[in-house]
Amino acid sequence: MAIDLTILGSGSATPTLTRNPTSQFLQIDGKCLLIDCGEGTQMQLMKFQLKSSKIDTILISHLHGDHYFGLPGLLSSMHLMGRTAVLKLIAPPELNDILKEQFSISQTVLNYPIEFIGTQNEIAETVLENGSFSIQTFPLHHRIPCTGFIVREKEKPRNIRQDIIEMYKPDVSQFKAIKAGADLVLPNGQVIPNKLITNDPPKPVSYAFCSDTAPSESVFEFLVDIDCLYHEATFDEELVQRAKETFHSTAKQAALIAKRANVKQLIIGHFSSRYREIETLLAQAQSVFPLTRAAFDGMFLQIK
Amino acid sequence: MAIDLTILGSGSATPTLTRNPTSQFLQIDGKCLLIDCGEGTQMQLMKFQLKSSKIDTILISHLHGDHYFGLPGLLSSMHLMGRTAVLKLIAPPELNDILKEQFSISQTVLNYPIEFIGTQNEIAETVLENGSFSIQTFPLHHRIPCTGFIVREKEKPRNIRQDIIEMYKPDVSQFKAIKAGADLVLPNGQVIPNKLITNDPPKPVSYAFCSDTAPSESVFEFLVDIDCLYHEATFDEELVQRAKETFHSTAKQAALIAKRANVKQLIIGHFSSRYREIETLLAQAQSVFPLTRAAFDGMFLQIK
Repeated sequence: MAIDLTILGSGSATPTLTRNPTSQFLQIDGKCLLIDCGEGTQMQLMKFQLKSSKIDTILISHLHGDHYFGLPGLLSSMHLMGRTAVLKLIAPPELNDILKEQFSISQTVLNYPIEFIGTQNEIAETVLENGSFSIQTFPLHHRIPCTGFIVREKEKPRNIRQDIIEMYKPDVSQFKAIKAGADLVLPNGQVIPNKLITNDPPKPVSYAFCSDTAPSESVFEFLVDIDCLYHEATFDEELVQRAKETFHSTAKQAALIAKRANVKQLIIGHFSSRYREIETLLAQAQSVFPLTRAAFDGMFLQIK
Repeated sequence: MAIDLTILGSGSATPTLTRNPTSQFLQIDGKCLLIDCGEGTQMQLMKFQLKSSKIDTILISHLHGDHYFGLPGLLSSMHLMGRTAVLKLIAPPELNDILKEQFSISQTVLNYPIEFIGTQNEIAETVLENGSFSIQTFPLHHRIPCTGFIVREKEKPRNIRQDIIEMYKPDVSQFKAIKAGADLVLPNGQVIPNKLITNDPPKPVSYAFCSDTAPSESVFEFLVDIDCLYHEATFDEELVQRAKETFHSTAKQAALIAKRANVKQLIIGHFSSRYREIETLLAQAQSVFPLTRAAFDGMFLQIK
């Protein structure tokens, strides 16, 4: 099992020539998700050859413009390109009002329905769940209400060994129970333990997205043992005071969270436009948590 | 005198990899204007090395997203980059409500004032005038209220010939009258005709911007003798019916307007994303009005 992640925008509030504002594209078990949608996201999707028509769900962490100003344009283009499939939109409730006003003024009636799922940033909650994965929100600590997201694959059933099927020819009616862990009982009453006749399914993976946030004790607890953590790292350590004032994190603070939560790997991003090169930020993070990588626009990563 | 025009976006509603939605940057007598502001305009300004901090006035023709979805991001970036100078914003009144709502939700208080000048599309009116140019709006014919813009340089005073100044040494107090056309009266009563002592000032130029519109008799009348006309040309002649239904123009229709209004040159743009190459559209326009050029992102033109 795997989650395919493409970073569409790795910059922060002010875009640069090489870093667009925040957006990420996730593929998980055939479904495509978009996390945040800064200005220019629809162009980035084209640039990195990802089809906006395949997006099933859009998640918006908070209503600072660099995380959603690309959404009205993307929704309009989906409409113009003939989308009819439902689009799930998981976001702060006020976004619904903004979109309704804009579409009303432009006299646009979208030819596909939006299923709007409002978020809150008081407590963690599961906002979407299907047979293959779940999406959980959790409160971040920013200047305005802001949530993080955890996308978690579900455990798959056990795989019955092909040679066992050929040897014992169990009845198809027994398959479901065996995949769920039951032993095989032969017609003569002999019991073959499940572990001998099945293989472990691929391990489910998890991805956590920490949009704009000050480092916080209550954020850390949601991230324990996550396979891949994206955490904002707007500033380097010299600007730790500026990070505090603006409810952002430094690269080192992001790494400390990753280390304490025992995540498998860390991606840092949302770099302030003042940094032309982000080697210093990456080094500061890696000094605490070596398995850190720095996001760039177009970065592709398979989380397994 | 001259108007420097840079096309920032030459596409229509759905952007492509090579054509951003509508936006144009104008420099006139030291002032910088932005006309329309589709998504990604702030990135296009960076790409073409134009400083957003220098923009004095922004004009928005109408509230279809491809003409203004880049505005909230641009205004936010101006704020983050420390702008304090007044920004004039000439646009449909509803835009003010949209911006106020977005900035209120993101708890953003801009550190520069916006002087909002609301447009209407009932009659033509002068919405801005200073010592060197004027901006006039005029009604276009689109699905929602939409205005065109004419930027017109003002006549400059006549230039007094340097050799005349040296020969007759007129008093400085006479300069203003001579520049306005008065003859020079020498101390002995002799009258030297103005035409002998001054040169013509550079001819003022005019630029008209016809955003989304169906071709129309009432549009044509405002464009007579314009130096450079930008006119939308969303479709080719095969799709003339589609143009009619959507209140857009074909390239040929744009050229017919240009010919009839006797403009000096025509720029066509706002090409539908269905056209990978726009040779056909350009040929159809040039068959009617040879002095037509096709806009592209980054196109620079000096109108003299």
